[in-house]
Amino acid sequence: MRTAFYISDGTAITAEVFGHALLSLFPVSFNHNTIPFVETEEQAHKVLQQISESFQDTGERPLVFYTIVNVDVRKIISKSVGINYNFLDQFVAPLEKVLGVPSKPEKHRTHSIHETTYDIRIEAVNYALANDDGSNLKDYDEADIILTGVSRSGKTPTSLYLALQYGIKAANYPFTEEDMGDMLKLPPTLRRYKHKLFGLTIAADRLHQIRSERRANSKYASIQQCRMELREVENLYRKEKIPFLNSTKYSIEEISAKILAETGLKRRKY
Amino acid sequence: MRTAFYISDGTAITAEVFGHALLSLFPVSFNHNTIPFVETEEQAHKVLQQISESFQDTGERPLVFYTIVNVDVRKIISKSVGINYNFLDQFVAPLEKVLGVPSKPEKHRTHSIHETTYDIRIEAVNYALANDDGSNLKDYDEADIILTGVSRSGKTPTSLYLALQYGIKAANYPFTEEDMGDMLKLPPTLRRYKHKLFGLTIAADRLHQIRSERRANSKYASIQQCRMELREVENLYRKEKIPFLNSTKYSIEEISAKILAETGLKRRKY
Repeated sequence: MRTAFYISDGTAITAEVFGHALLSLFPVSFNHNTIPFVETEEQAHKVLQQISESFQDTGERPLVFYTIVNVDVRKIISKSVGINYNFLDQFVAPLEKVLGVPSKPEKHRTHSIHETTYDIRIEAVNYALANDDGSNLKDYDEADIILTGVSRSGKTPTSLYLALQYGIKAANYPFTEEDMGDMLKLPPTLRRYKHKLFGLTIAADRLHQIRSERRANSKYASIQQCRMELREVENLYRKEKIPFLNSTKYSIEEISAKILAETGLKRRKY
Repeated sequence: MRTAFYISDGTAITAEVFGHALLSLFPVSFNHNTIPFVETEEQAHKVLQQISESFQDTGERPLVFYTIVNVDVRKIISKSVGINYNFLDQFVAPLEKVLGVPSKPEKHRTHSIHETTYDIRIEAVNYALANDDGSNLKDYDEADIILTGVSRSGKTPTSLYLALQYGIKAANYPFTEEDMGDMLKLPPTLRRYKHKLFGLTIAADRLHQIRSERRANSKYASIQQCRMELREVENLYRKEKIPFLNSTKYSIEEISAKILAETGLKRRKY
């Protein structure tokens, strides 16, 4: 199997995302290898060695995706026996022309604690945890968004993703069977914050499957129960005109991107 | 201020990461604008309109970063009045040559629920939540790593990031004052899993600041208490040869990347 290296003097996240997106266009499997924080010439020479060994082992030239600010380190990596993709660089000169200013690369400008929005993201993560699963209704004033839905419809992972990636404060409130006497009504606490509500729903068979992994053969996991709860919340969303999304076929990344696009909610971090 | 658009028929995460990395090389501020899920020609024409309006409003041609699989949609976006960066495309032909196979773009190949590792990531998030803050010692058999440290040294956000991004099951265990009678010793539960432990520490003044935001003027937040707790845990890490990292100057992304690099822990998702 051919090896892909992702190398940087930072986290190498940019190299990974770009490389991964490019390689995903091909129906081929790769052996992925990330080497972050290559900050000295000595470390760079060791990396060259790793790339050479991979070439010898596999008989195929590795693909090398790298973003490196330090010029000396970059020069060394650019001489690897792999097929080198210094994918940011070729866009720099044309962009300098467009912007009319020279680039001014600084180490760790992305994905570092020096981003001005860093503390906001951590605060948002703490908020999501403190307001998970309807645990803290008194803090809803602070919420940017309140995700609602039945148990295991994707609220918690989505609220954590919104916090970590975008610095958005997302509370989440679960509708449980207890809320569903004759007919599910919007609890008074939520009604006060109706403009912040966003509903999630999910296909009954998928919910049944997820809940069964958690509590097999329980009433909670039964397909009847799943159907009943989903019917109730979907009716509520429609009746109260709460925007909602069926999460069945979407990843957390997709759900989050769709929520931002639909609500116009502004992220705090780019 | 010049506007940057990130456009895709998927989440637009790849376009954002690439564009952001490129723009961060310049000492210039931008107005960022992400438009995900542009899947029809009609939607594409609306986007062209937005780009034109931005040009009219600002008098500067917007920068347009896009990754679009659908050929017809892509053609439309490529005709925008902005400065267009179809940054993946120019690498495709050379890579086809290297790999000896034609590319086979499929919509939503990255960042989607169809990634084979998707369920693993969600399971890891649930694991991190269930094993946050020393809450579930009985599940440590399942842990890939157990983060330790004093309260507010970065354990929880890091364990969530490891789960969401890499599908790694990270438990976290807080050393509290109660553990620190005469001298902090490794609790028996943790000793059994010593090979999985990774310690976090942090500068006392930074910890003091973080804790003060939470509980101002408390003993918990006092600089004396912070110093004492940190001295105890660092002594423990050294005595027990637990690998550890000072998180003061690092983001969650950097801490996570450093943990993976130092421990050799394999991520479940690339």
